[in-house]
Amino acid sequence: MDYRAWFQCIAGCNERYPLNEVVYQCRKCGDLLEVVHDMERLRHRSASAWMKLFDDRYLRTEWPYGSGVWGKKEWVCPSVHNDNIVSMFEGGTNLFWAERFGKSMGLDDLWVKQCGLSHTGSFKDLGMTVLVSMVKQMIAEGQKILGVACASTGDTSAALAAYCAAAGIPAIVFLPKNLISHAQLIQPIANGAITLALETDFDGCMAIVREVCSKNNVYLANSMNSLRIEGQKTVGIEIVQQFDWEEPDVIIIPVGNLGNVTALGKGFLMMKELGLVNRLPWIVCAQAANANPFYLSYCAGFKEFKPIKARKTVASAIQIGNPVSIRKATKVLQEFNGVVEQATEDEIANAAALADRTGLFNCPHTGVALAALLKLVARGQIKPEQRVVVISTAHGLKFSEFKIAYHEGKLPDVRSRYANLPIELPPKYDAVRDALFRALDSWSSSITPLEMFQ
Amino acid sequence: MDYRAWFQCIAGCNERYPLNEVVYQCRKCGDLLEVVHDMERLRHRSASAWMKLFDDRYLRTEWPYGSGVWGKKEWVCPSVHNDNIVSMFEGGTNLFWAERFGKSMGLDDLWVKQCGLSHTGSFKDLGMTVLVSMVKQMIAEGQKILGVACASTGDTSAALAAYCAAAGIPAIVFLPKNLISHAQLIQPIANGAITLALETDFDGCMAIVREVCSKNNVYLANSMNSLRIEGQKTVGIEIVQQFDWEEPDVIIIPVGNLGNVTALGKGFLMMKELGLVNRLPWIVCAQAANANPFYLSYCAGFKEFKPIKARKTVASAIQIGNPVSIRKATKVLQEFNGVVEQATEDEIANAAALADRTGLFNCPHTGVALAALLKLVARGQIKPEQRVVVISTAHGLKFSEFKIAYHEGKLPDVRSRYANLPIELPPKYDAVRDALFRALDSWSSSITPLEMFQ
Repeated sequence: MDYRAWFQCIAGCNERYPLNEVVYQCRKCGDLLEVVHDMERLRHRSASAWMKLFDDRYLRTEWPYGSGVWGKKEWVCPSVHNDNIVSMFEGGTNLFWAERFGKSMGLDDLWVKQCGLSHTGSFKDLGMTVLVSMVKQMIAEGQKILGVACASTGDTSAALAAYCAAAGIPAIVFLPKNLISHAQLIQPIANGAITLALETDFDGCMAIVREVCSKNNVYLANSMNSLRIEGQKTVGIEIVQQFDWEEPDVIIIPVGNLGNVTALGKGFLMMKELGLVNRLPWIVCAQAANANPFYLSYCAGFKEFKPIKARKTVASAIQIGNPVSIRKATKVLQEFNGVVEQATEDEIANAAALADRTGLFNCPHTGVALAALLKLVARGQIKPEQRVVVISTAHGLKFSEFKIAYHEGKLPDVRSRYANLPIELPPKYDAVRDALFRALDSWSSSITPLEMFQ
Repeated sequence: MDYRAWFQCIAGCNERYPLNEVVYQCRKCGDLLEVVHDMERLRHRSASAWMKLFDDRYLRTEWPYGSGVWGKKEWVCPSVHNDNIVSMFEGGTNLFWAERFGKSMGLDDLWVKQCGLSHTGSFKDLGMTVLVSMVKQMIAEGQKILGVACASTGDTSAALAAYCAAAGIPAIVFLPKNLISHAQLIQPIANGAITLALETDFDGCMAIVREVCSKNNVYLANSMNSLRIEGQKTVGIEIVQQFDWEEPDVIIIPVGNLGNVTALGKGFLMMKELGLVNRLPWIVCAQAANANPFYLSYCAGFKEFKPIKARKTVASAIQIGNPVSIRKATKVLQEFNGVVEQATEDEIANAAALADRTGLFNCPHTGVALAALLKLVARGQIKPEQRVVVISTAHGLKFSEFKIAYHEGKLPDVRSRYANLPIELPPKYDAVRDALFRALDSWSSSITPLEMFQ
């Protein structure tokens, strides 16, 4: 069976481009492109046959289908030759039953999808494997591509650099010189990316990277590139698969540039269209109150969207005032009757710390989603009997500084209500014993969310 | 079938204790204990039936067997009730085909077992799930256990704190006050461990933690506790499983306290005894030259062992002069006709950086193993046609400081031969283009190991 997919303009121009063409926007109207699949062909296989195929491949050894992304290759990017796939066994991440954390708010069926347990530590690997594989294929087909570029300080540049390094393709990362520390950059630096630090701000970097890519054979890996959405959409499919093909009631996801919720929705809509699920989950988008343009648009009934100037937030990767995928995401959220919730810095940091007390260790963006969860439960919008999944976007090890600052009480606008610091003691048995027993007395196996979430 | 296992003295005292008893050493002779399985009962199932059972469970949804550790429960810790198991889906980590890195030294069949792609970021999760599950069972059976303690600054305390937090059991971490930064401690702090910082050194902490545990109902999670070995031994079984039950030719593992190689060997010996493999791999233990007591003992034909004072090394977790499991590990290595190799600081850091250039991002301990690999290949002791596995013990995100210092050229005794730093530029297209093309000209898709490894 010859499965097919192509780029198509989202504005309805009917413009189509092959996936191995260097094109980021509709050549007719300039609007965004999305990957569209030949659904007729996909329908030739029954829903149960797709589920069986995906289960048979899932995390097994047949290259490249063990990857959570490439195990669903026909739905993702059917035209890449297996020899060109650059994969590090993406997906298959733990769907963690948050037993203690759930109980603290009266939920028995709360789960955290640990997307950060991944090669580069974030969900970005799901999309980057598709983009870099397609670039490898284009090079193999004889296209002259000198490298792949992006302007990013965070998870995107880390994923790009790692996948390019594995493939032997130069990665090029553009950054504002003074805004970025070596610590933020150590993954792309270590993975050998060509790193260009420009004496300008982010917008200045974006302008230059676009000019460089348009005038030279350098491929642009920015968030307008919809190949990445195809890999990212497997997260929703995988969650359903991990529940033995039962869809959860609620999914909460932290959002900034809005590509991830677009992808999440796309995966579910494809499952519904092909009969793998009968209903759609309620999707909750969580934004930092300091960077909440999507929340504001939602509150105004999505009648209009106004970009804002995002303020500083601990959830630095979603400090975005003018999200690229705003229209795609608005459309998706409306199809799911979804909502947008926001959380203050104080709520984000304390929700993350509360979850950490129950064994988690996630990024502050996950904290945004956890704070939204706590607020919706307190308001009765999420019910005790519902099955709820929180999508964790990255590993907490990428954000040690945030966690240290929290426990040292040094985060702006945050009262560290769950701070935990070492107890300093002389090396004497009696003193140690007394201090230990005092600490054990005040240790409680039941975690109670603070009134701020009630 | 009622599978059984118990603690038994390694000195041959025939002393046996149940696994749910609080006992760390033989009560008769004081020697170490190991977990011994009733092999007769395990033999009732054929090798192919075991392989099928393990495959059927592997990374699937039936609790708790989807975990790489608990999918092999009968071989690990059969007496724990499933309700008491504290699991975060351990194991199942990517066995990464290091294609580019391998080619750089003429190997086509080089693999890196990514144990750091785990809940707390290191292989310690494999053992900690067994220990904490057993403690949960002991508490459920009515034993009065107030908490679980360890003296560790690194991966062990992180794993202990996370598993205890998930289980709702207090974790207690003992540390020397001035030797540890909050950054090193942020995982146990975030996971709510009671952290006691004593005004003494490590030996002082060990003395106090032992006294506290012996006089109170506090369980000791130190490296003498052989329950952890049972979980850790699944790493070798899983590697063979990931090769569709074909054993590799060579396994290289970084070693300090020697529990991990003891576990690796134990898993292979059990597979051989039960007929799952026909031959044993060649095991290479890799030590930092600054902390090489096992290497020195190996060079002297294992005739004697002398503890040393370990010097500072970037591979901080294996900076150990008097390894706990020396006798177990010596015995194992002799059974495998294994060897010990050592690597200098310069070799460790540059081997890690060379691997990073090909898409990896591992801890400096993995660097020790990679340096040993490069040396053995250069000497012809590892042949091009051999299938080689390097065990990576932790994620590089735990060691960002090490990687930053490398690329900034600030590591003592290290010449950073693969340093990569941002190129600073004005935000002008022509300047950026020129710099980019110069960088692309000198970028090479083939990585060549330096002469230091030839």
